Parts: sequence; C-alpha cells; structure tokens
Amino acid sequence: MIRVNRHFKKLQSSYLFYTIAKRVAAYQDANPAAKIIRLGIGDVTQPLPPACIDAFHNAIDEQGSPETFRGYGPSEGYAFLREVIAEKDFGYREANIDPDEVFISDGSKCDCGNFQELFATDIAVAIPDPVYPVYLDTNVMAGRTGIFKDGHYQGIVYLPCTADNRFLPSVPDQPVDLIYLCSPNNPTGTVMDKESLEQWVSFARNNQALILFDAAYVDFIREDSLPHSIFEIEGAHEVAVEFRSFSKMAGFTGTRCAYTVVPKACMAFDENGDPISVRDLWMRRQTTKFNGVSYPVQRSAEAAFSEDGRRQVRELTDYYLENAKIIRRAMTECGFKVVGGEHSPYIWINTGQDDWAFFDRLLQQASVVTTPGSGFGNNGSGFIRVSAFNSRENVIDAMARIAQL
Amino acid sequence: MIRVNRHFKKLQSSYLFYTIAKRVAAYQDANPAAKIIRLGIGDVTQPLPPACIDAFHNAIDEQGSPETFRGYGPSEGYAFLREVIAEKDFGYREANIDPDEVFISDGSKCDCGNFQELFATDIAVAIPDPVYPVYLDTNVMAGRTGIFKDGHYQGIVYLPCTADNRFLPSVPDQPVDLIYLCSPNNPTGTVMDKESLEQWVSFARNNQALILFDAAYVDFIREDSLPHSIFEIEGAHEVAVEFRSFSKMAGFTGTRCAYTVVPKACMAFDENGDPISVRDLWMRRQTTKFNGVSYPVQRSAEAAFSEDGRRQVRELTDYYLENAKIIRRAMTECGFKVVGGEHSPYIWINTGQDDWAFFDRLLQQASVVTTPGSGFGNNGSGFIRVSAFNSRENVIDAMARIAQL
Repeated sequence: MIRVNRHFKKLQSSYLFYTIAKRVAAYQDANPAAKIIRLGIGDVTQPLPPACIDAFHNAIDEQGSPETFRGYGPSEGYAFLREVIAEKDFGYREANIDPDEVFISDGSKCDCGNFQELFATDIAVAIPDPVYPVYLDTNVMAGRTGIFKDGHYQGIVYLPCTADNRFLPSVPDQPVDLIYLCSPNNPTGTVMDKESLEQWVSFARNNQALILFDAAYVDFIREDSLPHSIFEIEGAHEVAVEFRSFSKMAGFTGTRCAYTVVPKACMAFDENGDPISVRDLWMRRQTTKFNGVSYPVQRSAEAAFSEDGRRQVRELTDYYLENAKIIRRAMTECGFKVVGGEHSPYIWINTGQDDWAFFDRLLQQASVVTTPGSGFGNNGSGFIRVSAFNSRENVIDAMARIAQL
Repeated sequence: MIRVNRHFKKLQSSYLFYTIAKRVAAYQDANPAAKIIRLGIGDVTQPLPPACIDAFHNAIDEQGSPETFRGYGPSEGYAFLREVIAEKDFGYREANIDPDEVFISDGSKCDCGNFQELFATDIAVAIPDPVYPVYLDTNVMAGRTGIFKDGHYQGIVYLPCTADNRFLPSVPDQPVDLIYLCSPNNPTGTVMDKESLEQWVSFARNNQALILFDAAYVDFIREDSLPHSIFEIEGAHEVAVEFRSFSKMAGFTGTRCAYTVVPKACMAFDENGDPISVRDLWMRRQTTKFNGVSYPVQRSAEAAFSEDGRRQVRELTDYYLENAKIIRRAMTECGFKVVGGEHSPYIWINTGQDDWAFFDRLLQQASVVTTPGSGFGNNGSGFIRVSAFNSRENVIDAMARIAQL
C-alpha cells in the first residue's frame, strides 16, 4: 500500500498566499465592480528593465538558429552569469566569493525549500518568528518537527522578533544546528546590522551550526554601513549559505531567476564529526534533481548587471522605496506603530487588533489586499504586512482609502 | 552540530551525465583539434520551432510593458497552458483528463525527483533495470534504500529489462508500493504495449500501489496501437501519475518546460488506510516549494500546440527518428544486436564487451560520445545507448567513423 509522508498532515491549513488568493478571488466574485489594490503577496508590478528585455529577445533569437541553439545548460548555471554575480554582487569589502560557489536556480523559494534536504532529519532548527513561511513548512514536511500546538511546532527553536529586540532575532541560549535568517526581513522590513550578524556568525562557529541567510531583498538597502551580505562578516564563509533573487531586484517574479552562494569553505559533519563540503552536497542535489534555468532567462538576468541594467534596476528599487515611504507616512499618520519600509519594500504595522479581522476589513471596505501577520508566525499576531510593490497611483489610492476608514 | 543527510553517502560516484561530461572535457582538452560528435546525453540540437520562438518574443514584449506585465503566476501553471495540454495531448480515446489535473514545471527531472517526497520513507519501491538514474538516486537520497552492494541498492525491487522479456519490465511476484515505469524507455528505446501496461495497472490496483509513468518521449511513437498515455488503460486514473516534457518534443532542453498529470481520482493512504488525494499533496508540495515556470516559457510551450506548432514539432521529431533509423541500420550492419530507435530517439546496442571500455574506445578513436549502459543499472552492462539527437550530417559522420573502427 502506497503510504503518504505522514508529516504533511502536520501542516497548518494551506500555504498562506494561496489562502489569501482564494479569499481575494471570492471577494472579487462577489463584488465584480470593486477595484482591488494588491499590497499583499509582495509581487512586483513594474515591467522588466529594458536591458533585460533586450537580452531576453537576443537569446531567444539564438534559440531559433541551429548555429547558436543551446540545449541543456549546466545544472549549476552558466559561467557568464555566475561570473558577473561574483564580480558585481560580491567583489567588494570582505564579501569575496568565487563564481563556482554560485548556483543559479529558478527561485529562492525553491532553494530555501530544498536546501534542508542536505541535512539529517534529527537536527535542531532555529527559525525567526515571524518569518517567511517556507522555512518552517519545508522542515515540517521533512519531518523535523512534532505536531503543531499552541501556535508552535514542537521541536523548532523559535527566535522571537518583536519590538523588544527591534525585530532582530537574538542568538538562543541553547545550541541549534540549522538557522534561518532573513535580512532585509520578510515580513518586518527590518535589516540586521553588523553587530547582530557578527553575533550570529560567532554563535554558528561556536556551535558548528549552519546559517541559511536569505537576502532576497538586499537591493533595497540604502545605507552602506548595513551589511549587504553575510559574507561581509569575518568567518561567515565557513558557516553560512546565502540566497539571493532577481525577483524583487529586477522584476523577475514571473520570469524566474535566483541564486544561492555556497562557499567552498562551508562544512557540515557526518556522524563521526568529519567535515563534508556543503557545496559538494548541494552540487550533487542539484545535478540529480534539477536541470538548470532557461538559457534566455539567464541571459536576461545577466543584463541586470550591465551599465544600463544597473541604472534601471536602481530606478526600479527606488520607485518601490518611494512607495514604501508613502505607506510608512500614511500609516503612521493613521496612528499605527510602523517598522520597515526604509531599506525594504515591506512595512510592518501593529494594528492593535486581530490581524485576520483587520485584513478582512481592509479587503471588504477598502478593496485593499494586505497580508495578515499571524500567517508569518505567532509573533505576527496583530500585525499586517503592507507591500510597496505596486504603481505609485495605486499606493496613493490605497492609502487614501485606508485613511478614510 | 549540523549533521548531513547520511543517505547521500550511499550514492554511487557522481551523477552519470556529469561524469561523462568531465571525461569528454578531458578528452577535448588533450585533443583540441578533435571534432567531437555527441550522441551521449540525449540533448536536442535543432532550434526551437518558429511558432515557439514567435510566442516567446511576444510574451517578452508583454513583460516589458506595465499594462501587460505579469508577476508571480500560479505555482501549478497558467490555465492557458493546462487547458491546451488537456485538450490536445489527452482529449482522445480513454485518456481524458481535466486541466486542473495538469501541473506545469521546469522539467520532468525535477518532477520525477521531487514526487517521491509525498510518500513515506519505508515503502517498497520498484525500479526498472536499466533505467534513467534519477528515479533511483532520488530514492537513495530520501533514505528508502540500504547500502549499495553487488551492483544493487538493498531494499529496492529491481525490474530487469533484458532481451528475455523484450526489455519490458514484468510485474514482480511480491507486493510493492511505488513503481517507476518509463515508456518509450530511456535508455532502451522500447515502448510498452497495451497488454504490458494493463498488467501493471491491474497489479497497482490489486496492491494499492502507485505508478509513476514517465512519458517524456511519447511524441516519438509512430504507431497508433501503442499506448501514448497510461491513462488510456482502464482504471489507470486511480493508480497512476504521468510525467511529460517539452524537452524532446519541441527542443526545450535549454528552455525548460514540462508537466505532470495527477488525476483527482488518484489516491495514496495514511497509516490507517484512509485515502488521501495525491493531487492535493502534490499541490501542497508545489505551492510550498515551487513558484511556477517563467511566463514567457509557458507561452512558448503553448505555441507548440498551435496548428503551425504541431506541424513543426512533428517535423522535428521526424527528423530525429530518421537519424535513429540511420543509427539502427549502421550499428546492425556492424554486427551488433540493436533495439529501440523506432518509436524513440534512443538506440540500445549490445556491444558484447565492457561498456565503459567501449565508450572510451568510441571517444578516443572516433571522437563519438555515447552513454555506457551500466550507468543505467546492472542490466545495462555491455550495452551502450546511442542518441539520435544531433544533426543529420553529424549522425552520418559518426556512423561512418564507427564503421571504420
């Protein structure tokens, strides 16, 4: 008898954004005339940068001619893209990495979700609360947790991120093995400073732990003194992996390209305590279960690093940051306590009430979609996440509607 | 201490095609003047059909304009593609399926590799020998096998495919829970007939087992009496999942698009024997760990079903089948026993000697790359797989070189 993975049963309801999408669809069905403004899922709305569009077209023309056609590419990505990433995204300060430490993929969600496969199922996992649900759900599916009780999965070490610690996770007072960090944070929009990251790297080194550092929103940081990569921290190459994405940086949410940096110095351990290269494990995982990213997509991503591309990407992120500023100001004026939105497209708002009720109120009475904070963890209760990913006009309109409420 | 997934250690050497690629690179380095002809990995060489190129360009233009830009699409794929697949690939005979039973992905390798996550780790798995290595390796990584000994992983039920059973796997005489079948087969190029598939569906129904049916090469079948889908077999919808791909059909190996059909009637069981929808589990897996396929890629794939697209796809597969005919004839004339290549781009050749030695001889003395059969399993020893994916000119040249040897 084909028996199911029993751990799937432990998962709480559907995936957060899928649930929201269904509620929004139901509202739209019931109110076909309503002009819904989506500040929920954190999906970009502005077109791809022209440099990326041009490169995309060129690569497709290559795919149409026998002389230039490309079939299977390397599972780990083309050298042209890995090299430009290593140079332009990491060739500064102490963050140096090698091109062959870069693995191209079709999304950070996939990489964040799949990376845990490399490790034993009985390790201790630490996850911020609140945080992007994928870290937790994929560990539940892999059997690293007990059941869900009182808002928490048994066996997970939750790292509370609240006003008390400026929404920055503090190192736990017990050893853990696998640590998820996300900066700029989703959902709180806060950025870990150098001191905070140094504490984590030091903790990981002392505990032979591994940090999975999700930097999908790094291109929104506008302050040089804030770390842009965990690899700026001394000693991080041995204990950290970093996820990055073209999704929010260059509008690739529908085009799909991301990458993960796994330094050669980064080690995990077998049952005898002997070190094993995490990069080699990931290479083996990717060559076995993945076949690389679409060639034209990789060419389009490469173009984001050209002179024109970089300028256009900067304009794009500036545009969303201006939206974020408008949202921050409007929500503050409404009397809410607000963090995030300065080096991040997300604004984290303390609603002072039940967040799903607040979500429904904004949907029903203002036709504005947000994300209820409790979907990101217990400590998100009472908060909503507002995303700056929309047109200027829609953001201004949405804020006016909310102010009226 | 961050401990590794101990099952990775059981894997035998590197992934087959990765190993071959390294040997070929070493040969090319040592012989820079050699004109290597690749009949190895089974990678297409002809450009994308013009209909797919046009649709690709149009979709990119949409991504360049704010009015038509699309961000995140559905994890399970756009309705436009799921609908045309259900209609054109399955709207015939008994093989009817619903569009919402179709899940679009970036590759059959990913789907074949990831699907096993839905099931318990202590189920019994049956895998043909020889076969595409991904089925086995991903089950090893998940911990469903013991160690590798005498050419076999302990705990796997191997289904021998040899001249004795016309290279078609026979149902085992013991119950198993998860069964991998591949038709047209990779590597043997043989196609399961209706009777053989009926036996498997009947076996699965009697044992509450699930069949994962890999039909990535279905578009090469040129005989109507041969099943094109397992869903043509009565009762299969309850016990089978089917994988298909645009890779070999429309030259998408570098463009990346595939799909998996999971009928709503298909059930697995919890520890109490209660049925659980496999489609719901896969939906949950995909919404949690995957973010959908690039929008322009899905538009390009859709175009393969247009009138022009279908004609061009047919020309493409005809072209490779003509290559296969040439290879079959040449190798038969050299005195080898040969199967496959009639409804498949693969020709399976009994070399009558060690297959890695034969592989090396063809590489070193004819600069022709093939795939050693033992890479696909014990019963592949002594065989090589020759792929018809190359230009006519190269295939003719390669056969001439081999004949000379």
